[in-house]
Parts: sequence; structure tokens; C-alpha cells
Amino acid sequence: MQSPIREARDNDWPQLWPIIRDVVTEQQTMPYDPAMTEQDAKRMWLLPAPARVTVSTNRSRVTGAANMYANRPGPGSHVASGSLMVGRHARGTGVGRALATDMIDWARRSGFAAIQFNAVVDTNTAAVRLYESLGFVTLGTAPGAFRHPTEGFVGLRIMWLDL
Amino acid sequence: MQSPIREARDNDWPQLWPIIRDVVTEQQTMPYDPAMTEQDAKRMWLLPAPARVTVSTNRSRVTGAANMYANRPGPGSHVASGSLMVGRHARGTGVGRALATDMIDWARRSGFAAIQFNAVVDTNTAAVRLYESLGFVTLGTAPGAFRHPTEGFVGLRIMWLDL
Repeated sequence: MQSPIREARDNDWPQLWPIIRDVVTEQQTMPYDPAMTEQDAKRMWLLPAPARVTVSTNRSRVTGAANMYANRPGPGSHVASGSLMVGRHARGTGVGRALATDMIDWARRSGFAAIQFNAVVDTNTAAVRLYESLGFVTLGTAPGAFRHPTEGFVGLRIMWLDL
Repeated sequence: MQSPIREARDNDWPQLWPIIRDVVTEQQTMPYDPAMTEQDAKRMWLLPAPARVTVSTNRSRVTGAANMYANRPGPGSHVASGSLMVGRHARGTGVGRALATDMIDWARRSGFAAIQFNAVVDTNTAAVRLYESLGFVTLGTAPGAFRHPTEGFVGLRIMWLDL
């Protein structure tokens, strides 16, 4: 399935929020506060430039989203980071790969030396396999750092891609 | 040398700011924006509760500072993190150890399962040795993730202490 990626627009938010809300309330793939309000989510996700926010679409429907930015300021600003989410009904259709590939392209052309993901849930095998297939390696795993609703305390991987 | 630790007070700021400013402008030990203003620094460092901010003192003089908080929200909130800084004139006198030991005590009595330091500069051997002597291990190192003014691109360690 095609998953064209474009930069997010203000009027994407009504379609973005349900995707983020699902991820936040499921508490299976990202360490976010489950009590996050829509306003908190908007502030957290729609980061101002030089950060970049993208969406994947299928016709006019938003199927997933990513954001990307320097992982740290100052002496750490040559390493990018980011997050990506796929809408519940679009999982397993290549949306994550399209969003991640676009993020890598952006980081490379922006002059970043690497991408670091700081907290990839170890039991999120779809994400781990996707990132590994794109060349990411695991630098280390924070043991039991994520409280999974059904799997208990699971690791958070720090993943890295040299560009 | 004794280095009593206490919670920071509003009127500590005039003594805290020069310590933070040195660390920020030296760019040798922490990945902060070197253009950070005093107001930025105050907002970054003096985090509101449930975060905690401490200072080490020698008589009435502030010699160093630490802050500490949950490393992540929601499903990651059982792991603590924090930062510590030692004033230029107090380095090598046990201030870092006193601040770190107090942080560990706080994390333990607050019920955290572990402490994660996300970005320990690999060439900051004083910090690495101190943390290792307190039981921290290195989960992994982000290669070349810190642009050191004299050492070039050096690693950022992710360090971890089980409590």
C-alpha cells in the first residue's frame, strides 16, 4: 500500500489526536502520561520549527504521524531524534516504514550525523524489527524501565543509526 | 571536606547561576545550549515539585547543585533521573559524591526502582568514576554524540543504577 508522507498542517490535528490518544491510553508502545489532555498532546507533538512534523496519508485520511528534532541542544545537536505513531487501523501496512524512511531522509539532508531513539519498548517487536531493518542498532536497554499493562516491566531500548 | 546537602531555596539562585553558567559555557560536561539565558537556566534547573532541587554548601557558600525527577512520565515514571553540577572552585573535593549520594537516597526513599543518567560525557572521567564507584553501570554509549571543544566528538554514556 502507498503511504505518501507530507508535512503536517494545522487542520490535520482532528485526525492526529485520535491516533495519539490511542497510543497514550494503550500504554504499550510509548512512555507518555496516560492522563495527557488534548492540549498537552498538541503541545508535545506539534513542535515548532526547526523540529518537523509529518503525517502519512491514505487518500485524504491521516494514517500515522512522526515528529523529529535535535536529540539534545548545544554540543549534542548533531544527533537527531524523533517519534512515530501509526493509527490503529493502519498498522502492519507499511506506514511505519514510510514514516521512518522519510525521517531518515530528512535527518540526512539536514546534516545530522545520526539518529537516536531514546526509548523503544522492547516488546514492541514491530518497531524494533522495522528500525533494525533500516540499519538501527541497539546501544543498550534500560532494564524494566517500561511498565507494560500486560507484559509487566519490560526494557526500553536506546537505538541508533549512523547517517 | 564536609559538603552538607539541603533543598535549594529561592535565594540560592544568585549563587547557583554562576555554577550553571560555567558548565553551560565550558561545554565539556553537559549537552546544554551555550546561548542559554539566565531565565532559561532558571526554568531548566529549578524544576517544580515533584522534582527536587538540592545544593551543597560550604558554610554559607553554594558549592554545587543537583536536580532529580522521574526520567519519563506514565509507564516510565518508576525510574528516576537527574543532573548534578559542581562549582569550578569546589571540584575534586567530594561535592559531587555528596550530591549524588543524596540523590540516590532520595530516589530510594521515593520508591524509584532505578536511576538513569541519559547523557554522561565519556571524557568526564571524574563523573564516570564517581558514578561507577556508587554502583552505576553503563548500559550503552552513543558514539560521538557530544561535540567536545577540545576532544572532538566523544561518546555520551547512558548510565544506570538499580535501587
